[in-house]
Amino acid sequence: MKFLSFTYKGNPTYGVKVKREDSAWSLPKLFEQFGEEKEYPKTLLEGITTYNTLDFQEIVRTLVEKAEADDNNHLYKAPFNEIEFLPPVAPPNNLICFGRNYKKHADELNNEVSLTVFTKANSSLVGDEGTIESFSDVTDELDYEGELGIVIGKEAHNVQPHLALDYVYGYTIVNDITARDLQKSFKQFFLGKSLAAPVGPYIVTKDELPNLNNVSIVTKVNDEIRQDGNTRDMILSVEDIIAEVSKYVKLLPGDIIATGTPEGVAAGMEHPDFLESGDAVRVSINGIGTLTTYIK
Amino acid sequence: MKFLSFTYKGNPTYGVKVKREDSAWSLPKLFEQFGEEKEYPKTLLEGITTYNTLDFQEIVRTLVEKAEADDNNHLYKAPFNEIEFLPPVAPPNNLICFGRNYKKHADELNNEVSLTVFTKANSSLVGDEGTIESFSDVTDELDYEGELGIVIGKEAHNVQPHLALDYVYGYTIVNDITARDLQKSFKQFFLGKSLAAPVGPYIVTKDELPNLNNVSIVTKVNDEIRQDGNTRDMILSVEDIIAEVSKYVKLLPGDIIATGTPEGVAAGMEHPDFLESGDAVRVSINGIGTLTTYIK
Repeated sequence: MKFLSFTYKGNPTYGVKVKREDSAWSLPKLFEQFGEEKEYPKTLLEGITTYNTLDFQEIVRTLVEKAEADDNNHLYKAPFNEIEFLPPVAPPNNLICFGRNYKKHADELNNEVSLTVFTKANSSLVGDEGTIESFSDVTDELDYEGELGIVIGKEAHNVQPHLALDYVYGYTIVNDITARDLQKSFKQFFLGKSLAAPVGPYIVTKDELPNLNNVSIVTKVNDEIRQDGNTRDMILSVEDIIAEVSKYVKLLPGDIIATGTPEGVAAGMEHPDFLESGDAVRVSINGIGTLTTYIK
Repeated sequence: MKFLSFTYKGNPTYGVKVKREDSAWSLPKLFEQFGEEKEYPKTLLEGITTYNTLDFQEIVRTLVEKAEADDNNHLYKAPFNEIEFLPPVAPPNNLICFGRNYKKHADELNNEVSLTVFTKANSSLVGDEGTIESFSDVTDELDYEGELGIVIGKEAHNVQPHLALDYVYGYTIVNDITARDLQKSFKQFFLGKSLAAPVGPYIVTKDELPNLNNVSIVTKVNDEIRQDGNTRDMILSVEDIIAEVSKYVKLLPGDIIATGTPEGVAAGMEHPDFLESGDAVRVSINGIGTLTTYIK
């Protein structure tokens, strides 16, 4: 299943993608029409948090089956050309980023490989098809970083690698937009990483990404392929990342950990071609989709 | 006014301190009994967020006046000896920390003074009188840092210093617990800073701290004074901090920025006396109160 948050007719809501259609089932509407619960989650984060991960997915599956069998089911659908994508969730612990996880990317920035974990401000989150500033008042070096994002499904503290996937709700796409000049001059990454954080379009449930060691990540700026990576080149696996981070941080349902970016960022080019007004960045991950961001 | 979040009879709630009494008015109860609003904020964060800062304080002031005049007003009070303090709010952008803001503290850790901003995970927040682990499985160097915390009242982006206080809701106390060994080895501070984040006991409204350039901050470990600082020694003022951070990060209502710690941390001692099981740390700030934390 592909979960998403969006605005439809001016109201923020959430839902699940309709199979083989460019539209979303509005989950609040399905809960009201077909649900047995008096109280239902008002946001996707509430759904992930309040219900045990698989419970929530089972409930949604049943609702969708009822809706599919309903003759008037167009009433519960929101066509993609009438919605605005929102970031799927606001992670309780900010958007957590795991850095320097691809050897060739660490090399292109002349970084040593070490445990590098920081956050991006939630207030910088933006959904698919979102437009961000060029931030030319504070940076001359706005860069992209296409990444696979892990979405946590239940509280995870001190988790062993071989159990780590039990704590995963699903996966999403993150573009870890970075002001390279600020990143360098401030040393702590938070400020240089908090200008913009595109996430989406979906959180896909983990069953849809069964082979985590072979997931392609492609980032295009306009029509040019800049990053052509694969999770098989990650230094730490998804399981290892959850184990490492959860040694020090209690992860909560809805938390997102971006797993690092492959080589090919602008800062690594001989003549860095940073992002500028009018550019479109597209990060595509097999099994999830494409996250598009426009620079104003 | 001193706002607080707490559990009473097993339920999480929030309120405002009763004047000259060790008890809190339960604000949900006052809203139900004396309020004119059908809908009222269910948490302190909602109060700060949904209502314009001063509006919310005006509403609360009126409710408290009505309660004070009520003969049965003990029904709306929660005595401090029957409550557990919670962190006042969960800041939308994690607990933001502004580092290296006291020259002598930067000196004691041999750090150059530069814009150093990072976050602590919300999942590590703990209220006044809270007990935290010694975390001896991951650190041998658990340290304290007593700090004044700014609480943001309304969205702040690119704010000028002379207007910065308009965006402040109030102030609180932060103990920026730090694993020095992790802080050093990981370079990015997030992991070494996210083991524990005591905050509280109150958010005092900004009118109660009129002279921001002369606020004393004293940290004791057991009965020994370790830090005896004053905001007059801050390199950047409260106004400057808000201006600097808001250049890069859109601050949201309920966000907290810890303003840096004065000299006297354990890591700066000739023979560092780090925190260990059985210790009690008390950070006292004039006009706010004392934040106590026990090490298990």
